[in-house]
Amino acid sequence: MTDSAVQRVQRKPRADGERSRRTILGAAAKLATIEGLEGLSIGRLAAHIGMSKSGLYAHFGSKEELQLATIETASEIFSADVVAPAEQAPTPLAKIEALCEQFLSHVERRVFPGGCFFASAAAEFDTHPGAVKERIADFQRDWTDLLVQLVREAQAAGELRDEDPHQLAFELNGYLLMANTAFLLHSNAQAITRARNAVAARLALSQTTT
Amino acid sequence: MTDSAVQRVQRKPRADGERSRRTILGAAAKLATIEGLEGLSIGRLAAHIGMSKSGLYAHFGSKEELQLATIETASEIFSADVVAPAEQAPTPLAKIEALCEQFLSHVERRVFPGGCFFASAAAEFDTHPGAVKERIADFQRDWTDLLVQLVREAQAAGELRDEDPHQLAFELNGYLLMANTAFLLHSNAQAITRARNAVAARLALSQTTT
Repeated sequence: MTDSAVQRVQRKPRADGERSRRTILGAAAKLATIEGLEGLSIGRLAAHIGMSKSGLYAHFGSKEELQLATIETASEIFSADVVAPAEQAPTPLAKIEALCEQFLSHVERRVFPGGCFFASAAAEFDTHPGAVKERIADFQRDWTDLLVQLVREAQAAGELRDEDPHQLAFELNGYLLMANTAFLLHSNAQAITRARNAVAARLALSQTTT
Repeated sequence: MTDSAVQRVQRKPRADGERSRRTILGAAAKLATIEGLEGLSIGRLAAHIGMSKSGLYAHFGSKEELQLATIETASEIFSADVVAPAEQAPTPLAKIEALCEQFLSHVERRVFPGGCFFASAAAEFDTHPGAVKERIADFQRDWTDLLVQLVREAQAAGELRDEDPHQLAFELNGYLLMANTAFLLHSNAQAITRARNAVAARLALSQTTT
């Protein structure tokens, strides 16, 4: 065998393992938005993806490890689907608009069947202290920090007027969360439209001089 | 025995049953905001309140019946704690302000340990079609309708300017929901303050003439 063939052979099991792990966790993240992260037992997930429980145990030693790995995968999916496209926008204000729009589109396209993974996970784990809740809270903090940072940059660039960036981020976040909740509960896209209107009006208000 | 003594004796078991049912459902509603409505098995609830499973089965024939009765009780608690005090306010606008304030105070006082019962229940059941989800969606619709109706009355009274009442109600609701989520996740009362600021600023905006 040539060296590169040896490398291919040696690499293959790892690549397969990595692919399989990603497939498992993608399915786990989707399932979690329906059944909850607590409903994500190794047994139920094994049945859902047609894999043996022992095969899953080889990947994840415990339910908490599976939950944390699922959150990481959900975070990567969210980054690729919501954050990365918004980063292409030309100015801080355009990035804020794009982030809000990408979030609403992410919910509307049902990237996760139960809407925003982190809204769902937060509602489930807010009363369960521990590593899982901390990881969800970290994600929410990072998301809010990103919005706040962009508001500061937009203010520095003269695109938005001076006001408390945390307050503005809170209000934008409220429209997005409300859209997610109402869209899922009433299966009605009106909530998405109302959130779009609210974001546009709130940002327009912050563009006027007082 | 006199007639009234007979009545007392006859009534006693029913009054006891009613009291006991209310005690059970109050505990169930609180537990549901921590463990979820799906976590509300008759066995777990029996252990939680120190009652026999057979005793609970005498009250509720099935888990769904228990869930629906728990939702009714949560709805009564919410009405008494949030809606009734706001009804005392003198004008439609004052009623809207009082409803928002009562909601935020309801979350802050942890009337339910897991915050707003219906936010929690909606996040859990939004992907589970059936009678329980329908009852939760009905509650949310009633709450939104109440806000929309008060906005209409405030507009008719000249307290708020003409704008889409559904849009305004959506935005106010977003602030309240965001406060509930952030308060529970970060154990930080700042979210409550930000929601208060947001409600006040949004209503002030709707009081200005365009």
